[in-house]
Amino acid sequence: MAMMETPLNTWLLFGHAPRYFPDTEVVTRLPDGRVHRYTYAEFARRAQQLMHALDALGLAPGDRVATLAWNGYRHLEAYWAVPCTGRVLHTLNLRLSPEDLAYVIGHADDRAVLADPDLLPLLEKVHERGGLAGVRHIVVLGDKVPDTALPGVVAYEELIAGLPDAYAPRDIDERSPLGLCYTSGTTGRPKGVIYTHRSTVLHAIAASSQAAMSIGPGDCVLPVVPMFHANAWGVPYTATPYGAKQVFLSGSLDPAALVELMAAERVTVAAGVPTIWMAVADEIAARGGLPELRHLLCGGARPPRALIERYRRDFGIPLVQVWGMTETSPLASLAWPKEHMRDWDEERITDAVRTRAGLPLPGVQMDIRDEAGNSLDWDSISMGDLLVRGPWIADSYLGGEGAAQFTEDGWFRTGDIAVGSPDGYVVIADRAKDLIKSGGEWISSVDMESAVMALPEVAEAAVIAVPDDKWQERPLICVAPRPGSTVTLARIRDHLEATGFARWQLPDRIEVVEAIPRTGVGKFDKKALRARFDS
Amino acid sequence: MAMMETPLNTWLLFGHAPRYFPDTEVVTRLPDGRVHRYTYAEFARRAQQLMHALDALGLAPGDRVATLAWNGYRHLEAYWAVPCTGRVLHTLNLRLSPEDLAYVIGHADDRAVLADPDLLPLLEKVHERGGLAGVRHIVVLGDKVPDTALPGVVAYEELIAGLPDAYAPRDIDERSPLGLCYTSGTTGRPKGVIYTHRSTVLHAIAASSQAAMSIGPGDCVLPVVPMFHANAWGVPYTATPYGAKQVFLSGSLDPAALVELMAAERVTVAAGVPTIWMAVADEIAARGGLPELRHLLCGGARPPRALIERYRRDFGIPLVQVWGMTETSPLASLAWPKEHMRDWDEERITDAVRTRAGLPLPGVQMDIRDEAGNSLDWDSISMGDLLVRGPWIADSYLGGEGAAQFTEDGWFRTGDIAVGSPDGYVVIADRAKDLIKSGGEWISSVDMESAVMALPEVAEAAVIAVPDDKWQERPLICVAPRPGSTVTLARIRDHLEATGFARWQLPDRIEVVEAIPRTGVGKFDKKALRARFDS
Repeated sequence: MAMMETPLNTWLLFGHAPRYFPDTEVVTRLPDGRVHRYTYAEFARRAQQLMHALDALGLAPGDRVATLAWNGYRHLEAYWAVPCTGRVLHTLNLRLSPEDLAYVIGHADDRAVLADPDLLPLLEKVHERGGLAGVRHIVVLGDKVPDTALPGVVAYEELIAGLPDAYAPRDIDERSPLGLCYTSGTTGRPKGVIYTHRSTVLHAIAASSQAAMSIGPGDCVLPVVPMFHANAWGVPYTATPYGAKQVFLSGSLDPAALVELMAAERVTVAAGVPTIWMAVADEIAARGGLPELRHLLCGGARPPRALIERYRRDFGIPLVQVWGMTETSPLASLAWPKEHMRDWDEERITDAVRTRAGLPLPGVQMDIRDEAGNSLDWDSISMGDLLVRGPWIADSYLGGEGAAQFTEDGWFRTGDIAVGSPDGYVVIADRAKDLIKSGGEWISSVDMESAVMALPEVAEAAVIAVPDDKWQERPLICVAPRPGSTVTLARIRDHLEATGFARWQLPDRIEVVEAIPRTGVGKFDKKALRARFDS
Repeated sequence: MAMMETPLNTWLLFGHAPRYFPDTEVVTRLPDGRVHRYTYAEFARRAQQLMHALDALGLAPGDRVATLAWNGYRHLEAYWAVPCTGRVLHTLNLRLSPEDLAYVIGHADDRAVLADPDLLPLLEKVHERGGLAGVRHIVVLGDKVPDTALPGVVAYEELIAGLPDAYAPRDIDERSPLGLCYTSGTTGRPKGVIYTHRSTVLHAIAASSQAAMSIGPGDCVLPVVPMFHANAWGVPYTATPYGAKQVFLSGSLDPAALVELMAAERVTVAAGVPTIWMAVADEIAARGGLPELRHLLCGGARPPRALIERYRRDFGIPLVQVWGMTETSPLASLAWPKEHMRDWDEERITDAVRTRAGLPLPGVQMDIRDEAGNSLDWDSISMGDLLVRGPWIADSYLGGEGAAQFTEDGWFRTGDIAVGSPDGYVVIADRAKDLIKSGGEWISSVDMESAVMALPEVAEAAVIAVPDDKWQERPLICVAPRPGSTVTLARIRDHLEATGFARWQLPDRIEVVEAIPRTGVGKFDKKALRARFDS
């Protein structure tokens, strides 16, 4: 007897938006260009109707309810309604192949799928492969059911229409599962990560911090990051109870539409991978900036320095690096400046802060270890495996797969190679699998890409390792030049040498491409590049 | 198996400051005017030495370790060291009488007391009354033991000197007690509130939010609120892991010293009761403002509107209302503007936001009930008892006292009378015991004080109820005029009527005083006024 035994479940947060922010808006730009807007009061009524609908479908407690959907208000309703009824929200990555989708739907044992209308053809392909054998309900996120070969599809609006818009809170154990997301699977099969109510509520509260995404009731937030991947970095679970206005761009990325939406809705905080901010920079420039934007959260990969500098110089917008993974809920560290840096000029802040992966959030602990498992000093020199632990970090994958990524002493091996600075900032040197091992030394592909993308004639660049008889591996640089420009290996080698790379690190080979291929979550797809050039 | 079973205890947060903010400073202005400063690296080494010292004293797990101390770095060390060893930090209110201190030390069964040198005479008086019978160790927070009648006093610096400065983290159950604080006891005996590791860690994370105190690594925070009362609003448990620079003013309040310290250390966020901000406004004006201050957190009582307006108009500093109590850890609601208010002028923001007690933090739920226990609408009209619940709200007092303040359905009765607005802001009308019941209607003493303090000739004003044969109670106004001014009842009645008070609400009696007496935590002491004038 001391403090109340209030479980950390979604009901602790769900009632906030309708009660204290009834008039705050949720805005969705639909794929056809129309804009849907409603208030948190209406959001909560519809989410509670969906809770009743899930009960009416006869789904059991703990059943997995999948979404195959773009960002948008119905997806937000599912984010809250599914866990509030004690079921598990499985966000399907719509960039996966039909084969991989069939695999994860079966592996997760999904009982229902809520799908956007334009994704039904993809779901049909999954169905053709027998991938929906365990699925008993398909709900299309719209007013009516389009022509489809799928059996028994019902429309979301028909499903919830007329149902009561109040639902009595359930007493849900905080350690019960809330959600399920599979890793993007750049190596091997996707692996499932189970989020609990406790981990998600803790993450939601931690994410609003001044040290994290810095989202409060005065903000208007646009997660460009997809809701099908790592909970859109947790934005929907944070922005909703904290009463920030939420803005969604539904459908695949259209840079002009995104920037127009950000300007029209006066977005203050947005979150996305570096390739997004590369893609929209010219649009922002054409508008003369986005004066209401306070900061951009940039993660999923290390942003090139030239990008950080461009946003700072041309738009006055700080790009705040975010580091995390599906397994870390995902926010683990963010790169904010410290108090004693208040008088530093922006150049110095860029060096010391913005080009780094950040300071671990309170609650997350980090360790950098050598191959023997010994902790390395944070001395800006020692490079090793990054491990993390904390109450919103996974302790296993669904079904016990990938057990080697979890240490006996309770840490998660991230697969990233990192360096810590004496003042506590972590720098991600590379993914372990992307690091180039040449003649017994390591070359960071990310460092090299960042340097090459500073060249004005380079639009995008990615560096991969190719096998080498003498050196084991050597770097190969893939470059997409800016329209009308040409790029040569000699020019790149000269530039890299001038910016401090050693001679033995310089790439021996260049491949000029039209664009660097992207993974399902928008990062550079080095697996695809390796498959193409790895010989 | 899903997410790591990481307990929410102080060890989850303690390692952050030394690891990721080793060079960030903790600054203490000592009572003699000297300034002590060190880094979080040194803080953590000394805190770990103190952990070893507590072990060496032979204190058992769960033993209460009391502090009788001003704000300062040694107090901060105790804040972390005591709970990290599994013991319970009992912050004694140094404004209590020796009798009350003897009572709470005995009631809490304190085993050790860490006391500032200048507070030893107070502790001697407690000892004379037999109030230290159960206390086995007295540690004076200094280099050496001054002359004292107390037996067996040891000096803090001698106690920790030479001890190892690393301490192996303990596996502490998150529901075990971390701290103990007694209510200020304006009615009856002080009652004890036990904070747990879980409630404190949750509060620490929630408090850094953009919606709460908005404290991050870029900030410099000064809690004017005492560390002996409601954990200085949680500042030490938030600022430390989030890496904000912390500044303490040790000893009793000196307005000039406080403002000088805020300017010299470039404070960005400060926290205190309204009487503090009243007391220092002229000093801030004399300096021409405090340009680095982002906001002032103002709670413990409702700030008068004139104060809010003065800080906005003269200094450009937003006064952010905070509402909470010892029983609520203490942050429950804070008054931040919403997204759709971005274009509002400051006058309108003052009306809609700054004069209100705020929006409940996610995690805290509020209910306003009538005398029959029915929930009232948040319609800006219905006034009733404010109840709260959540994971950092007390579910009982130590020893089961005051059980009537906890409802059967799991809420804490705050004793405040509140009104909710349709857009989710709560307004505290009054403490239930301060509300004036006149002729079957209620008069808010806080509303009336706020209006009277807008008069230029009034420095301070407090309204109390006096018994009345006909009307049951009638308002009496106690006024401290500004130096050289005079105030009359007629002038006050005219002003109140002009600002919207009804004729029957106007006070019938005035008492002119030199200053309004203060409680131990700096609020207007209406109990003292009632004792003086209640006839």
